[in-house]
Amino acid sequence: MSFNTFGKLFRFTTWGESHGPAIGCIIDGCPPLIDLSDKDIQTDLDKRKPGQSKFTTQRKESDKVQILSGVFEGKTTGTPISLIIYNQDMRPKDYASIKNKFRPGHADFTYFKKYGIRDYRGGGRSSARETASRVAAGAVAKKVLEKKLGKRFSVSGAVTQLGILGCDTSNWNKKIISNNPFFCPDKSMIKIWEKYLLDIRKSGSSCGAIIEVRANGVPAGLGAPIYSKLDMDIASAMMSINAVKGVNIGSGMSSAQLSGEENSDEISVKKKKLKFNSNNAGGILGGISSGQEIIVSFAVKPTSSILKSKKTIDKFGRNTSISTKGRHDPCVGIRAVPVGEAMLACVLLDHYLMNKAQCM
Amino acid sequence: MSFNTFGKLFRFTTWGESHGPAIGCIIDGCPPLIDLSDKDIQTDLDKRKPGQSKFTTQRKESDKVQILSGVFEGKTTGTPISLIIYNQDMRPKDYASIKNKFRPGHADFTYFKKYGIRDYRGGGRSSARETASRVAAGAVAKKVLEKKLGKRFSVSGAVTQLGILGCDTSNWNKKIISNNPFFCPDKSMIKIWEKYLLDIRKSGSSCGAIIEVRANGVPAGLGAPIYSKLDMDIASAMMSINAVKGVNIGSGMSSAQLSGEENSDEISVKKKKLKFNSNNAGGILGGISSGQEIIVSFAVKPTSSILKSKKTIDKFGRNTSISTKGRHDPCVGIRAVPVGEAMLACVLLDHYLMNKAQCM
Amino acid sequence: MSFNTFGKLFRFTTWGESHGPAIGCIIDGCPPLIDLSDKDIQTDLDKRKPGQSKFTTQRKESDKVQILSGVFEGKTTGTPISLIIYNQDMRPKDYASIKNKFRPGHADFTYFKKYGIRDYRGGGRSSARETASRVAAGAVAKKVLEKKLGKRFSVSGAVTQLGILGCDTSNWNKKIISNNPFFCPDKSMIKIWEKYLLDIRKSGSSCGAIIEVRANGVPAGLGAPIYSKLDMDIASAMMSINAVKGVNIGSGMSSAQLSGEENSDEISVKKKKLKFNSNNAGGILGGISSGQEIIVSFAVKPTSSILKSKKTIDKFGRNTSISTKGRHDPCVGIRAVPVGEAMLACVLLDHYLMNKAQCM
Amino acid sequence: MSFNTFGKLFRFTTWGESHGPAIGCIIDGCPPLIDLSDKDIQTDLDKRKPGQSKFTTQRKESDKVQILSGVFEGKTTGTPISLIIYNQDMRPKDYASIKNKFRPGHADFTYFKKYGIRDYRGGGRSSARETASRVAAGAVAKKVLEKKLGKRFSVSGAVTQLGILGCDTSNWNKKIISNNPFFCPDKSMIKIWEKYLLDIRKSGSSCGAIIEVRANGVPAGLGAPIYSKLDMDIASAMMSINAVKGVNIGSGMSSAQLSGEENSDEISVKKKKLKFNSNNAGGILGGISSGQEIIVSFAVKPTSSILKSKKTIDKFGRNTSISTKGRHDPCVGIRAVPVGEAMLACVLLDHYLMNKAQCM
Repeated sequence: MSFNTFGKLFRFTTWGESHGPAIGCIIDGCPPLIDLSDKDIQTDLDKRKPGQSKFTTQRKESDKVQILSGVFEGKTTGTPISLIIYNQDMRPKDYASIKNKFRPGHADFTYFKKYGIRDYRGGGRSSARETASRVAAGAVAKKVLEKKLGKRFSVSGAVTQLGILGCDTSNWNKKIISNNPFFCPDKSMIKIWEKYLLDIRKSGSSCGAIIEVRANGVPAGLGAPIYSKLDMDIASAMMSINAVKGVNIGSGMSSAQLSGEENSDEISVKKKKLKFNSNNAGGILGGISSGQEIIVSFAVKPTSSILKSKKTIDKFGRNTSISTKGRHDPCVGIRAVPVGEAMLACVLLDHYLMNKAQCM
Repeated sequence: MSFNTFGKLFRFTTWGESHGPAIGCIIDGCPPLIDLSDKDIQTDLDKRKPGQSKFTTQRKESDKVQILSGVFEGKTTGTPISLIIYNQDMRPKDYASIKNKFRPGHADFTYFKKYGIRDYRGGGRSSARETASRVAAGAVAKKVLEKKLGKRFSVSGAVTQLGILGCDTSNWNKKIISNNPFFCPDKSMIKIWEKYLLDIRKSGSSCGAIIEVRANGVPAGLGAPIYSKLDMDIASAMMSINAVKGVNIGSGMSSAQLSGEENSDEISVKKKKLKFNSNNAGGILGGISSGQEIIVSFAVKPTSSILKSKKTIDKFGRNTSISTKGRHDPCVGIRAVPVGEAMLACVLLDHYLMNKAQCM
Repeated sequence: MSFNTFGKLFRFTTWGESHGPAIGCIIDGCPPLIDLSDKDIQTDLDKRKPGQSKFTTQRKESDKVQILSGVFEGKTTGTPISLIIYNQDMRPKDYASIKNKFRPGHADFTYFKKYGIRDYRGGGRSSARETASRVAAGAVAKKVLEKKLGKRFSVSGAVTQLGILGCDTSNWNKKIISNNPFFCPDKSMIKIWEKYLLDIRKSGSSCGAIIEVRANGVPAGLGAPIYSKLDMDIASAMMSINAVKGVNIGSGMSSAQLSGEENSDEISVKKKKLKFNSNNAGGILGGISSGQEIIVSFAVKPTSSILKSKKTIDKFGRNTSISTKGRHDPCVGIRAVPVGEAMLACVLLDHYLMNKAQCM
Repeated sequence: MSFNTFGKLFRFTTWGESHGPAIGCIIDGCPPLIDLSDKDIQTDLDKRKPGQSKFTTQRKESDKVQILSGVFEGKTTGTPISLIIYNQDMRPKDYASIKNKFRPGHADFTYFKKYGIRDYRGGGRSSARETASRVAAGAVAKKVLEKKLGKRFSVSGAVTQLGILGCDTSNWNKKIISNNPFFCPDKSMIKIWEKYLLDIRKSGSSCGAIIEVRANGVPAGLGAPIYSKLDMDIASAMMSINAVKGVNIGSGMSSAQLSGEENSDEISVKKKKLKFNSNNAGGILGGISSGQEIIVSFAVKPTSSILKSKKTIDKFGRNTSISTKGRHDPCVGIRAVPVGEAMLACVLLDHYLMNKAQCM
């Protein structure tokens, strides 16, 4: 059971609501003797932090993380690592307007149906603010993997489609990706995406996005048939991110249209080095990593909160309408990039530890 | 941990290799006092059974299931239900040809890298034969859900794309779907698909497929934030099926291209009945069912075993080549339909029980 | 996996070291709509709080708990409840004396062997301070059980043996138990125990204790064969408490000496009311509650930190010796009473929810 | 969740009723490349097999085990190992006599209250027959541990108290233990125990027993604070065995009566070899193995089925009485010895794998 816990051997449990005093997470199962400081985690959190450009939500959150346990004299001790991030900038919004109404596309209606009660302030528990905890956990996972697998290990994500606009992903360069507000890997598209998103923002609308996350330096053998397949756990991880509606491994949904010949990732050896002729499998065969690059992509639906009025009902079962005012995020997908990276790192570490337990 | 176990409160554990003496599964957590007989399970197994048409594998398996425990005087007792299916038609194939070679696109290479040993006969544990166990578990899950939710509950799957050919899914009719060898929901496409697949088969090639599974009569409130989201568990379930590379909930990957307005599933009430204007969410909001139809689709890659010779290596690290002989299945996706239905039923029952525990 | 998580459906995860900034726990799976405030938890914490009498550790801890999430407008919301207790009175002890030495009977040696690193300050993670988190979780469990089972449900613990001194448990009265510093249920023994423990304290020695915990108002049917037996989970819960070395259900270890006739808890019905003639089973048959009173007892070994010098080794493998100075707790068992109550409440709620899921 | 599954990384799931067609178990998480044959398992099963002496149940069961999966060419493959044991000697007893009655001390009443249905034939699922599956799983665990830890690793159990009769355990010799029908470690007591038990048997009564299980060659570092303590999992394992009511680690319940000085297991080093002066801790400190011998004991209550008539009720709530006829086992505790050994081996392997994952 794992309502708020993710992972099997490397596990994190998150807690907190958007407008409560704080959010946080507990990381359990982290190997001991890993160098770790607040700063290691803060760097990744800053990447996810809102309010950094006009293209994402304007809520100002410093997202300052504090380690409360599990680290002694700069090293992990093998005991649970508790992280806390205090909430800030909780504006005295007019919550009255959404207190009793269910915003379409949000979790308002379903939380109410399930629990009979909900913290309606800023989405409460279903707010994307929870993903800060994941980014923190992912930062720790990356530190462990870098120690265990060496510097050849890396995880890197980008937005590969913004609304209706795709881009060229053949020149995947971390520097380019991190130097534009869209995590776009294609320099030539940045200006175009910028104009596109500004227009959407001005019109009060929103768009979806596709995020791609890649991991390099992953050894063959991670994953486990039949119900701990690496791709199962990755799909599950990505689908847990707010607003994600689809997940692909390698060629993903497109593989349905390939012929057996096209899809075949032939294998050969040259100078004792293994080579796959292609990577439709996204680095995973039979649920187990092949040593190829792990390639995952997922779709984030358009922000549900838009300025246009929408029909909905209230908790008393009456017809009404709702529209968003104030801070408006034209594409929530952009901020999902560091979250996807973090989740992939966590899944990979989890499977690394499982493989170590059973097969090494 | 769950290498071979699926589910949380309704759990099944599968075992067995393609060419061992038998395969089977243990179902744990099934509520007591549910009517259950071999026949209830056999009906679903027969739907998945290979050798039924020239479009699927020609291996003859009677797939005769036997209940070994957990049922007393025709009713479940709440104790584990053990099911066994003996293997048949294990032809004295020339296994020598694949004993030391890794078939591209298969789990041969990764199993060997992980475990240092593999049962190479017919794919061993990674064979699609394992899915018979899931169909059996799904049959039990459906019996329970029908008792708990009433006859309004139903699960229904179809092939909605066969290789490059789509079809019209607007007239979803269980009878039409089950009366053609492709589980195609569009009468007008059956002949076209038939010719297309026969051509592929003759040429020794293969194609992928997209399967869509729908569930009706699912109440609002199933699912649980943040890491037991209903869509997470569904994505995980579908991704666990052999050869699946992508999963969509509702609009899925396409939702990236929608605008906030298009994607908004507005809610209204008419004569005390709740109505959503659309179902881009696939019946799930914030990880919790909304009461709408649950809609899932997933892509199955083309059969990796094709007649054309492919480059590969052997377990000694030498270049070689391989081609499939004998029984050849041009589209493994077709047989994934009852498997997808079964997995969806299992996930829904699991969440029904979890919701009952916490919220009812 | 559950290094720092206890429970299946009602789960709590604890974190924190004795001398870190804080300790705390996350409660997951709590039903919604339960009235809950800081005060509900504080009452139980105060019972465990050290420094309340000269018979327990003199460390002053206010143990002030704060709810950080999961409660909205005075009610649980079904989302994780995060509790934090800041550490206080962390005296600038001379840690140098134990920094490199392993205190016999403590976890110092084994933590170091396992992790290669340990927070040696005040026992670090292995400090009994962690049990404050359990008492907090137990307070929440009791609130839920009282709502679900009614006021007839209650949990009550006592010290039934202090070192070599037993007592009469036939007149089990909550008021008497809570009105003496030993949680002794036998008024006539209080003065005798007091003298006994003062003598031990003066001599710088320590003694063990047996704690008995009882639950009333538990319905028949909680527990699950074969590996979620109610007595398994209770034994596991009690054995998780610091310094516990033995656990009995009902007649426990003594049942080995009973004859079949003596041990037989005969059943009869009188005026439609079920009656067991005895309760050697401690209210559990075949791992499932019978509706009788649940009776559990466990032994806490004598405090390992005594004033007398003891032989030990240091982390460099050299012989040395160690003796405790300063604050000294002659019987750690006494403070285990509220912890045992809390753990029993948590196990019972967990099984109540499991039973609800599968059988109600 | 684990109704019928035991373990975390090395897990086994058992199924089957006393009078169904078969019983069995699935072992999941077993490392690959371990030599394993039916015979390895059969040897241990034969030790538990009933009908071997007049002191245990007279039911004749050949308990012939068959491996159905997970082993290829004599070695484990890392995939689930399915074991089946067909039931035999299911006598056409007069089940009518117990069909509607609840035998006192048995699980009849509680199963019925929980599930509303039960397989009453021979105890159904609650029969001690289920323990054959555990012995089989334990045999596999021992094979793995012997490979991983070397031949210095061994597990050995004995009956150390038979009813009111104790024995001398200071000369623990596997040969002596296995060469008498009571698994008694004290040669001088065998004749006395024999007479004692024959008398009990003749009188139609029964007695309890205490079983002690020891493990040697266990390295320091196995176990994990706080809620996967090695002693928690051992206590849980032993308490899961039918009719067990109490569990001790090391000095166990007696530790309550020790002084801090007596209980202190002082540590010293001589010629670079670590030495503990005593082993009150039973080889476990702070939930983690210290490298000392692991010592566990548990009490099995007297057989509930005795020839004397006992008062009870039937499922319609009416007073009645019951007495056992035919096969009668004067001390079920004896056959618990190989079961206790098996459970300890399984727990140790589980923790060995967990430790490998996190700390090695």
